[in-house]
Amino acid sequence: MAGKIYIIGIGPGDEKNRTLRMLEAIKESDVIIAYTTYADLIKDLTDGKEVITARMKEELYRAKMAIKKALEGHTVALVSSGDPQVYGMAPPTLEMMCANNVNVDFEIIPGVTAALAAAARLGSPLSMDFAVISLSDLLVPAEEILHRVRKAAEGDFVIALYNPINKPLLLKAMEIIAEYRKGETPVGIVKGAYRENEEVIVTTLSEWKKYLDKINMVTMMIIGNSRSYICNGKIITPRGYTSRYDYVNAFNS
Amino acid sequence: MAGKIYIIGIGPGDEKNRTLRMLEAIKESDVIIAYTTYADLIKDLTDGKEVITARMKEELYRAKMAIKKALEGHTVALVSSGDPQVYGMAPPTLEMMCANNVNVDFEIIPGVTAALAAAARLGSPLSMDFAVISLSDLLVPAEEILHRVRKAAEGDFVIALYNPINKPLLLKAMEIIAEYRKGETPVGIVKGAYRENEEVIVTTLSEWKKYLDKINMVTMMIIGNSRSYICNGKIITPRGYTSRYDYVNAFNS
Repeated sequence: MAGKIYIIGIGPGDEKNRTLRMLEAIKESDVIIAYTTYADLIKDLTDGKEVITARMKEELYRAKMAIKKALEGHTVALVSSGDPQVYGMAPPTLEMMCANNVNVDFEIIPGVTAALAAAARLGSPLSMDFAVISLSDLLVPAEEILHRVRKAAEGDFVIALYNPINKPLLLKAMEIIAEYRKGETPVGIVKGAYRENEEVIVTTLSEWKKYLDKINMVTMMIIGNSRSYICNGKIITPRGYTSRYDYVNAFNS
Repeated sequence: MAGKIYIIGIGPGDEKNRTLRMLEAIKESDVIIAYTTYADLIKDLTDGKEVITARMKEELYRAKMAIKKALEGHTVALVSSGDPQVYGMAPPTLEMMCANNVNVDFEIIPGVTAALAAAARLGSPLSMDFAVISLSDLLVPAEEILHRVRKAAEGDFVIALYNPINKPLLLKAMEIIAEYRKGETPVGIVKGAYRENEEVIVTTLSEWKKYLDKINMVTMMIIGNSRSYICNGKIITPRGYTSRYDYVNAFNS
């Protein structure tokens, strides 16, 4: 019997931000393949199943195991945090199937990606056009990443930075953004959104470096656009040009 | 007793892509405020509750009602599709509270945003840095939107276009993108992702106009970057510079 691969996003990592479809697909699977940390985050769901864990940078191994197990007839859950296509396991798995002319039935199960999870803790920073950029230069040259940071800054996009762990590259990226935005531009730093020991910091482009020690593998950074502001400790990016007057007027009418 | 506002994302609209937290918050609420279509999408959850619906363009009315009901002591669910900050109800509500110096307890509950839902149906197009742009020019000038489209194209971002219903503006945006990308660049068009009568179209930058009639209020468009390709009818955006050889080699090792 032909197997199947569910390429699953588990969301930020807590139980409540999981989707029903994600839970259903894990239940249906007899083989679970995940990076070690993510396997821990779903261990309440994997009792009695074969769990194959692998360390970081072993994406190709995990993709291969998923395909081979499915070819043997298993139903496989290949697990990423957040959403599986946003720097997750969907692209290497689809690329591997394509490169090897292997056709296995698969379904991508979307999830709440890290930028949206972090943003929810910060207020509403992602409420105008935004750019999602990974600062990991393992697979993409640093110059290409910084080029994109510059274009996002030029376009006045709100910017969500994944994988800001490479601090020299992060400092360069933030310097580029600071060429285009004022010092009071809001910056949100969220460490481990919705996980134990979550930390949420609302700061600014001129002050953010004070929190450099908060930045690790599970940190997301969000930089507001030219109209973002901080109110009652939350970052708000206005949706458009609705004025303060309009809001006062609408509320009192 | 002080009330509370849950600013909720219901995901793409089907039951399975809801999160557990979203279900819990609706259950806890006694007042539900939603655009009419979204109220219909969750009517299995709202029995016995006060449901306040409003048409499009009545965002300020919905924000006001949510705040007033919470001030009266109600627990209010203010509902958006997808994620509530991505062109949803989070920013007007937070702006209205801030402009009127009203402090009501609130929680933003993230959801699977439309770009990720559509992308999951298309394969894995959003697997490198991407830009999210709304083509609605109700609150943002068209020139500003097109400026951002150009910067996203210059930065080789994968581009997700929300609200492509304004066809003259859509045509201009796609012309700008075509200045930077080849005719065979993959284009995904998803109408009503995960809803009844969902339509998923994989086409290219030179062919997409054939499907102009598929574009309405619930359509999402995703345009690949310079390295995106179509394989077995799915759009794949490689995560980085891993070669076809690496994939063949890893699979057979």
